[in-house]
Amino acid sequence: MNPSVVCSTDMAKAAPKDMSHHFSDVTKARKPSSMKRYYKFFSIPGVGNLAGGLPNAQFFPFDTLEAQSAHPNRWRPTPNQPGRDALSSAMASVKVSDDGPKAASHVVVPHDSNTSDLTKKIDLTTALQYGQASGYPPLLSYIRQFTRECLHPNVPYEGGPEVTLTVGSTDGFSRVLDVFTNVWVEGKHDIRERPGLLAEIFIYPLILNQAQPRGVQICPVEMDEEGMSPYGPGGLEDVLANWDDAKGKRPHLLYTVSMGHNPTSGILSLERRRELYEICSRYDVIIAEDDPYWYLQFPSAEVEEAKARNKPIPEFKVANTLPNKSGYPFIDSLVPSFLNIDVDGRVVRIDTFSKTVAPGCRLGWVTTAPGICERIGRVAESGTQQPSGFVQAIIAENIMGPQPEATAAFTSRSLKDRATFTGWKTEGWVRWLEGLRGEYERRMNTMCSLLEEHAYQLKQSTPVRDADSDWGVITKTQLYEFKWPRGGMFLWVKIHLEKHPLFRAVASQGNVINGPALSTALMFFLTHKPHLVLASPGTMFSTTPQIAAREGWSYFRLCFAAETDEMNTACSTRFGQGVQKFFRIKKIAEIEALLEEAAGAFETDEAESLTNIGLMGC
Amino acid sequence: MNPSVVCSTDMAKAAPKDMSHHFSDVTKARKPSSMKRYYKFFSIPGVGNLAGGLPNAQFFPFDTLEAQSAHPNRWRPTPNQPGRDALSSAMASVKVSDDGPKAASHVVVPHDSNTSDLTKKIDLTTALQYGQASGYPPLLSYIRQFTRECLHPNVPYEGGPEVTLTVGSTDGFSRVLDVFTNVWVEGKHDIRERPGLLAEIFIYPLILNQAQPRGVQICPVEMDEEGMSPYGPGGLEDVLANWDDAKGKRPHLLYTVSMGHNPTSGILSLERRRELYEICSRYDVIIAEDDPYWYLQFPSAEVEEAKARNKPIPEFKVANTLPNKSGYPFIDSLVPSFLNIDVDGRVVRIDTFSKTVAPGCRLGWVTTAPGICERIGRVAESGTQQPSGFVQAIIAENIMGPQPEATAAFTSRSLKDRATFTGWKTEGWVRWLEGLRGEYERRMNTMCSLLEEHAYQLKQSTPVRDADSDWGVITKTQLYEFKWPRGGMFLWVKIHLEKHPLFRAVASQGNVINGPALSTALMFFLTHKPHLVLASPGTMFSTTPQIAAREGWSYFRLCFAAETDEMNTACSTRFGQGVQKFFRIKKIAEIEALLEEAAGAFETDEAESLTNIGLMGC
Repeated sequence: MNPSVVCSTDMAKAAPKDMSHHFSDVTKARKPSSMKRYYKFFSIPGVGNLAGGLPNAQFFPFDTLEAQSAHPNRWRPTPNQPGRDALSSAMASVKVSDDGPKAASHVVVPHDSNTSDLTKKIDLTTALQYGQASGYPPLLSYIRQFTRECLHPNVPYEGGPEVTLTVGSTDGFSRVLDVFTNVWVEGKHDIRERPGLLAEIFIYPLILNQAQPRGVQICPVEMDEEGMSPYGPGGLEDVLANWDDAKGKRPHLLYTVSMGHNPTSGILSLERRRELYEICSRYDVIIAEDDPYWYLQFPSAEVEEAKARNKPIPEFKVANTLPNKSGYPFIDSLVPSFLNIDVDGRVVRIDTFSKTVAPGCRLGWVTTAPGICERIGRVAESGTQQPSGFVQAIIAENIMGPQPEATAAFTSRSLKDRATFTGWKTEGWVRWLEGLRGEYERRMNTMCSLLEEHAYQLKQSTPVRDADSDWGVITKTQLYEFKWPRGGMFLWVKIHLEKHPLFRAVASQGNVINGPALSTALMFFLTHKPHLVLASPGTMFSTTPQIAAREGWSYFRLCFAAETDEMNTACSTRFGQGVQKFFRIKKIAEIEALLEEAAGAFETDEAESLTNIGLMGC
Repeated sequence: MNPSVVCSTDMAKAAPKDMSHHFSDVTKARKPSSMKRYYKFFSIPGVGNLAGGLPNAQFFPFDTLEAQSAHPNRWRPTPNQPGRDALSSAMASVKVSDDGPKAASHVVVPHDSNTSDLTKKIDLTTALQYGQASGYPPLLSYIRQFTRECLHPNVPYEGGPEVTLTVGSTDGFSRVLDVFTNVWVEGKHDIRERPGLLAEIFIYPLILNQAQPRGVQICPVEMDEEGMSPYGPGGLEDVLANWDDAKGKRPHLLYTVSMGHNPTSGILSLERRRELYEICSRYDVIIAEDDPYWYLQFPSAEVEEAKARNKPIPEFKVANTLPNKSGYPFIDSLVPSFLNIDVDGRVVRIDTFSKTVAPGCRLGWVTTAPGICERIGRVAESGTQQPSGFVQAIIAENIMGPQPEATAAFTSRSLKDRATFTGWKTEGWVRWLEGLRGEYERRMNTMCSLLEEHAYQLKQSTPVRDADSDWGVITKTQLYEFKWPRGGMFLWVKIHLEKHPLFRAVASQGNVINGPALSTALMFFLTHKPHLVLASPGTMFSTTPQIAAREGWSYFRLCFAAETDEMNTACSTRFGQGVQKFFRIKKIAEIEALLEEAAGAFETDEAESLTNIGLMGC
C-alpha cells in the first residue's frame, strides 16, 4: 500500500444509502450478541473474569502451529500488457525465485506473543480461543486495509466499505441470501411475496442449490461473451421493466461472477459495469458480486486468439481507468470491482482464499457498506461463529510475518529459519497472485492452442468420376467454437451438434436423436478409451430447465486448472480428437448404446462414497 | 477400541423410525449436490478430469503443516471413583509425563501421501482441496468409529448412528434448527404454525439468539439440580400435556445440555434420561443434546461437598449401567448420552472440539440416526461446505499419527521428531481428556472450597446490658448457596439477596430496591477494587423474561475454567469477600450509586472494539 499513490477524491462523497428495507424478516429480528455489553469490563485493570465461558488456553494441546511456506516468487508471472509480437519474450525478463518450486521458508505461530496491539498479536492463545465473528483481529485488520486501499481504492461513498470474514464464498453467499431473502414456500405463501434472484443464464450450479430450497425464484438474464447483458430482449433492464408481479416479487437481488465468469469465462468491462449499475440503482437492486477468480484475468487471451485465427490483433485497452491506484501494476491492470462505482452502497462483494491459497482454508471475506456488513457479520454469531483459528493464524503469520514482540518462540528457531522468513507482506502477496495468474494463464493458452487444432473437420466429398480431377471438394466443418478465456479457470466450448450426421435421426424406438441426446452421448463417448476425458455438460450450468433445453446442451465446460500440466495438455488434445471421432459416428446404434450407458449411470443415485471425491468446488 | 469388550446385543434391534415428518420446508426442498452423480467417473482408470472446478494442489502455498503437540499425559487426571477418604492420595498414583507441561512432539502433515486408502491419507493435497461436507475422510472415519464404539456402544437401533462434521457446536445447532424448524414471522404467519423449542428454564444464551430470529418460541421446562424435570408442575410432561395450541404449535424439538449443564452444572442421570426420553417418545419430540462438557464429569464433587459441609459422604453410584462398554475405564465411568437409550432414533447429539482441543478449531460433529444425519450434512453443502482443512488435517495427524506410506515427508524429519511422535491414537486421546478433566476438576474443587469459607455471615447482636454476659447472640446468615458442580465449567451460585439489609428499602426517587436491582448493584460492586471480579448475572441465562424476573436475578454463574490457576484461586476468595462486604452496605445511596453506574454502562451500546474480546464462548 503506497499512500502517495492513493490520491484522494474523498471530498464531497455522500454516505451510502440505507438498504435496510431489503433485509429479510430473520435479519431484522437478529439481535447483536448480548455479550458485547460486557466487553468494557475486561479493560478494568486486574479484573478477574469469572464471567466468560472459555476454556483455558494453557490446555490447548498445540504449543505452536507451523508450516513450510512457499516463497512468493515461486511461480513465473505473465505480463500485464502482453506484447503484440511474442508473448514468451515478454515473460522471459520476469524475475523468479532461483530455487524454483522448492523456494520456501518456515512459518511459526507461537503459543504466546506479548504484543499488546491485538491487530498485530498473532499467537495460538488468541487464535485458538473464542474470537469475534468478523474475523481474527490481525487478519481482519490486514484484509480490511488491503481491500480498501489496494483492491478498491475508488469506492465512491463516504467512509468506504467494511469487511467481515467468512468461512469461504459459499458461506458468504449463504449469508447474503439470509440477509436479503425471506423463505418462501409454494402453496403456503403468497406468490407476490416470492423472492427472486437475477443471474446470468449460465451459472455456478451451487448457487441454485443455495437459493431454490428457500423458494427463491431464479430469474435468468441474457449474457454475451463479457457477461450479463444490460439491454436488449432478456437483458437486465428488460427483465426488470417488464416484470410480471403474478410470477413473484420483482427481484431486488442480483448474483454475478463478473471476472472470469463460471462457466463462460467472460470479464465485465468497466463500461458494462456502469450500465448494469445504473439499472440496478434505478430499480433498487442489491448486487452480489462473487469473484473467486478476480486475479485470474488473462490479457494474452485476445492476442493469442487473434494470432491463432489469423485475425488482426486488437488494440490494447486499459481495463481500469478510475483515478485512484493501488500502486501495484498487477492490481491496477485488472478490471475493477463494482464496488469502485458503487455510489449507493448496494454492492456486496464476496471474496475467498479458495483459489489464491486453497479451498480447504474455508476462509473468505465480504466487502460492502457498513450497514450491510454488520448484518452479514451477525449471521456468523449464531452459526459458524468465526473461521477456524488454525487457518486464520497461519495465513496472518504467513502474510504479516513474525511480529517484533513475538520473539520468544521465534528466536528459538534455527538461524536459517529466522533468516529466511519475514512474512510475505503485501508485496509478496501480490507477487504470489501474479505467479498464480502466470501459471493458469499459460495453461489456458495451452488448452486453447490445442483445441484450435481440432475445431474443424475436413471432409473430402466423393470423387466425381470422369471429372477433371480425381479429387473431390474438401469441405471444412466447424465442430466447435470457443473464445479464449479472458479470465477464470474455465473454457466454455460450444459444440455444433446440429451438424452431426445423426442429428435428428430416428432411433429404434421411434425417438428422435435431438441435441440434448447427442450432447449426453458425447459426454459419455469422451470418457471412453482412448479419449478418457471428463467434461462438464452445459446443462448443469443452465440457470433454468428452459435455458438447458434451449442452448445449454450445446456447451461443455473445460477446466484448465485442476489437472497436472501434462494431463492438461494431453486431455486438451484428447478432447479435440474425441469430438472429431464422435462426429464420424454414423451408426445410430452407437449413439443408442451411449445413451443407454448414460441412463444406467444417472439412474442409480449412489450413496456418497468415501473413495470418490473430486468434482467438488466451483 | 477393544472389540472384545464391546459385547453384542445387536440381535433383534429395530431400525430407527422415520423422522422426516419433522423436517422443515427448506429441508424438504434441499436436494443433494448434483455433483455426486459424477463421482463414479473419477474411478475410470486414466480419466482426465476437465469437469471439476478445482485449483491445482501444486499451487497451494504450504508444503507442510506442522505443530508442536502436547504429550497426551501432560496433565494429571483425577480418579474415576474418588476414595471417600483422601482425594489427593488417590490421585498421587496416577502416571503423568516426566516432562510435565513441556512434554511435546512434532507433528507434520506432508504435502503428499501416497496412501491409496482415503480414510488413512492425511496430506495437504487432499486436506486443503475441496472435500466432502461430511468431513475429511480420515478424520470423519476416525470420529465415526470413536463415537460408535467408544462413546455410544449401546445405541439401540439397527445399524447404529452416523456422524457428520460441523464447524463447531453453534453451527451444529444452527443446522438442527434449519432441519427441524420453519421460519415464523409474527403478524405474517398463523400462530398455530409457530414452532417451539423446549429447554430448561436456564439456558446457554446463544441458543436464544439462534432460535428467536426464526420466530421459534422458547418453552421453558422446570429443572432441578440434575437438569430438566420430567414430571411435576412445569416439568416436561406437564408442558406437553397441557399445551395450548393458541400459543403456537406444540413443540417437537427439545434442546438440552445434559452433562455439566450451562449454567447450572447438573448432570442428568441415566434414570432421569429414561424418564425424559419416554415422554419425548410419547409426544414425538426430537432431542437435541448439546454436550461440549461431556468428559468433564466430576465424581469428587459430591464427596468434597459433603466433607466441606460435615455431611455423610453419599454412597458411590455407578453412572453407566448399560451393558456395552468401551473398554476405557474413564469413558465407561461417565454418564451415557441419550443416544444409548434412543430406540426411536430421535436423538441428535452435538459434539465439539472447542473444549477438548480449542474453540478456535471451529470443528465438531453431530451423531444421529442416518436419515437425520444426511439432512444435517446437506445443510453444509450450501453453507460452510466443510470444516477448515487446516484444522481437520492437523487433528487427524495428531490423533492418527503418520501413516506408514506417508514416509517421504516424515523421514525427512529429524530422528528425534520421528522417535517422539507416533500419534496419540485413541489411548492418547482418552488420556488427554482424563488429564483435562483432572485439571478442571481441581479448579472446581478450589473454587468451591474457597466459596464455602464466605457463604455465611456471622453477626453479633447488640450486647444486652445487665444480662448475664457482655456478649450478644451470634447469628449465622447464609449469604449464598451452591452445589459443587458435578460437571462442566461453571459454578451456579444463588445469592440470598432477600436477606440484604436494604432489600425492599425505599430509595430517593421513591423506587423500591428490589431483588433484580440488588443483583445488578452486586455485579457492579464486585468489579470494584479490591474485589475486581466479573461474574455473569443469572438473568442472562434465563430462558424467558419471566424466569429472569422470577428467580434469574438471584443467581450468578462463575467459570472456573478461563482464568489462570492463581487467578481462579484469588478471584474465588475475592468473590466471597465481596459478597460479604456487599451485605454490609447500609447506606441506600451506595446502592443507588451502583445502579447509576450500571445504567450508564448498559446504556451506551458501544461498538465492538478490536481491543476487547474475551467473554465469548459459552
